[in-house]
Amino acid sequence: MYRNFKIVPNIVFGRGSFNQLGDILKAQRCDQDSFMVFVLDDVFKGKSLEGRVPLETGDMLLAVNVDDEPKTSYIDQLVTEVKAFHGRIPAGVIGIGGGATMDIAKAISLMLTNPGSSADYQGWDLIKNPAVYHAAVPTLAGTGAEVSRTTVLTGPEKKLGINSDYTVYDQVLLDPELLAGVPKNQWFYTGMDCYIHDVESLNGTYLNEFSRAYGEKSIELCREVFLDDHPDKDDKLMMASYFGGMSIAYSQVGACHALSYGLSFVLGTHHGIGCCITFDYLEEVYPQGVREFREMMARHDIPLPRNLTAGLDEKALDIMANVALGLTPLWENCFGKDWKSIMTKERVVELYRRM
Amino acid sequence: MYRNFKIVPNIVFGRGSFNQLGDILKAQRCDQDSFMVFVLDDVFKGKSLEGRVPLETGDMLLAVNVDDEPKTSYIDQLVTEVKAFHGRIPAGVIGIGGGATMDIAKAISLMLTNPGSSADYQGWDLIKNPAVYHAAVPTLAGTGAEVSRTTVLTGPEKKLGINSDYTVYDQVLLDPELLAGVPKNQWFYTGMDCYIHDVESLNGTYLNEFSRAYGEKSIELCREVFLDDHPDKDDKLMMASYFGGMSIAYSQVGACHALSYGLSFVLGTHHGIGCCITFDYLEEVYPQGVREFREMMARHDIPLPRNLTAGLDEKALDIMANVALGLTPLWENCFGKDWKSIMTKERVVELYRRM
Repeated sequence: MYRNFKIVPNIVFGRGSFNQLGDILKAQRCDQDSFMVFVLDDVFKGKSLEGRVPLETGDMLLAVNVDDEPKTSYIDQLVTEVKAFHGRIPAGVIGIGGGATMDIAKAISLMLTNPGSSADYQGWDLIKNPAVYHAAVPTLAGTGAEVSRTTVLTGPEKKLGINSDYTVYDQVLLDPELLAGVPKNQWFYTGMDCYIHDVESLNGTYLNEFSRAYGEKSIELCREVFLDDHPDKDDKLMMASYFGGMSIAYSQVGACHALSYGLSFVLGTHHGIGCCITFDYLEEVYPQGVREFREMMARHDIPLPRNLTAGLDEKALDIMANVALGLTPLWENCFGKDWKSIMTKERVVELYRRM
Repeated sequence: MYRNFKIVPNIVFGRGSFNQLGDILKAQRCDQDSFMVFVLDDVFKGKSLEGRVPLETGDMLLAVNVDDEPKTSYIDQLVTEVKAFHGRIPAGVIGIGGGATMDIAKAISLMLTNPGSSADYQGWDLIKNPAVYHAAVPTLAGTGAEVSRTTVLTGPEKKLGINSDYTVYDQVLLDPELLAGVPKNQWFYTGMDCYIHDVESLNGTYLNEFSRAYGEKSIELCREVFLDDHPDKDDKLMMASYFGGMSIAYSQVGACHALSYGLSFVLGTHHGIGCCITFDYLEEVYPQGVREFREMMARHDIPLPRNLTAGLDEKALDIMANVALGLTPLWENCFGKDWKSIMTKERVVELYRRM
């Protein structure tokens, strides 16, 4: 059985295409009571991008804070705010920001039409009702959140996405101009999320020619961005992120993402930097990928935090390892059906101790 | 203004995935009166594939003949047959075959919900009502019909597609096993349609990083198929066709396709072979592409018909040239805004005379 892969059905790509967002949303404003919720990373508060959001009368501008990775409790609170705004459901939710903001917008759009807490839906295909219309405008490139069927949330018990076909955006708008002004380290860490997606997908047991075609092109684009410093690097990174997302969406990520989830759950480490930290200790699993990653780090003079787990007790390390090892599909993609004999709990804990 | 590009929202890729078609269609059979129309290339009549079509009680198996390129009159006749079958509109139309069959299925699905003749809709965005659900199962790879927003038809006045967002399939199922048994020349000519899409897209003035990423990967896959004879060549050609279609869908084809349309209109030449014939005379426009194309032809010992236009009078050549020159976006993509001063009618007629 092959997955029937759900794809974002509408894409705009181009420098300055953000100016078309208002026109694109017009088709969704079905009557005069229709309103849009713009979920904006609060780093843009008071910046020029905030002024360019195509707000119409009755629309809601919801500035969200992503200093921490998105939590299910935060989603539940935001959904309550959105519902209270006009006492009715909006016609659309538009996420403008990086992976965390895009994931928050996805989760809000799902939870507006599905009862209970977002924590109830962490897992695979637990969502029952279609989301409200949702669109993404990435201002950071690499996460693949713009194309993925998940929204990664930290809940009371686990860091795990709401994975469903309904999670997939209805529209993405890729405007490479929006990448200008991203702080260098964040640009790098987020871009490496994409590079690591490609390595994990291309070295995985789930790989097919669909994922290979996307993954190979994505990693080539990453090389043009991070090794060749190509003049069109912003456009190329947008496409790399999109292709990387398409590659893993039909296969899966692997060991690095699994370990980074444990790290994030216990230490709150952000996803991009968390992936970079764990990837650097996975030379045994992805020898070529890790070597090239280090070359990219050196070229851009990027620092990596060390000794993150030095102060952790056994219990914390145990939780960390359990979160990581709970992600069966990721390990199975990496090592095959027999993964448990290869990536034992001892080996995971030992890897974490070195970080 | 950038195009808001409509993409096929659901894809299955995998060897043997044809066996899942019945399950996929279940979701579209909303009530007991729902029925499906399977549009099957009549070359499969009596073949094993016909027996594998997941027909349920009340479904219609519509064997279509594609000895000629699809004509608007043929579409109108088939739509009448489908409407008469149960006296109501089907829940879905599924095209199983090559580009012509997939285009016929698209056109039927559009004309079931739009009044008049299919000839009324040849052009850009003339379709007013959404089509009925339609799905594609390619048995030949290269045309990109599985992803494109057009269905190319020969009408009383012109060969021109019905271009609209509604034309795009709701579902494609890519099963590389279905490519087995294609006659070698047909495999090659159809595959070259894809290779030529890539050359025209990558050398066009409309190119952006979106089209470039898809086009570059597609042409790389074509090389693995037609130059390296890769063991996974069927899987790769399926992906090349898909990527090639994605590349031109956001840019455009060029000189070769424009000329091939004129050839087809007057002589009824099939699309794949028609593109090969015209491409071979375009070394001045696409020098590198034409050289590599000839290398591929030589490697597979593929013949090309010659002296096709030898018996044509001036009037026929004039019609041919007018059909080709009527395709403004294709020429503009190829040569830019100033294309009329580069590709004059005299030059087009001269090119045709040599074919």
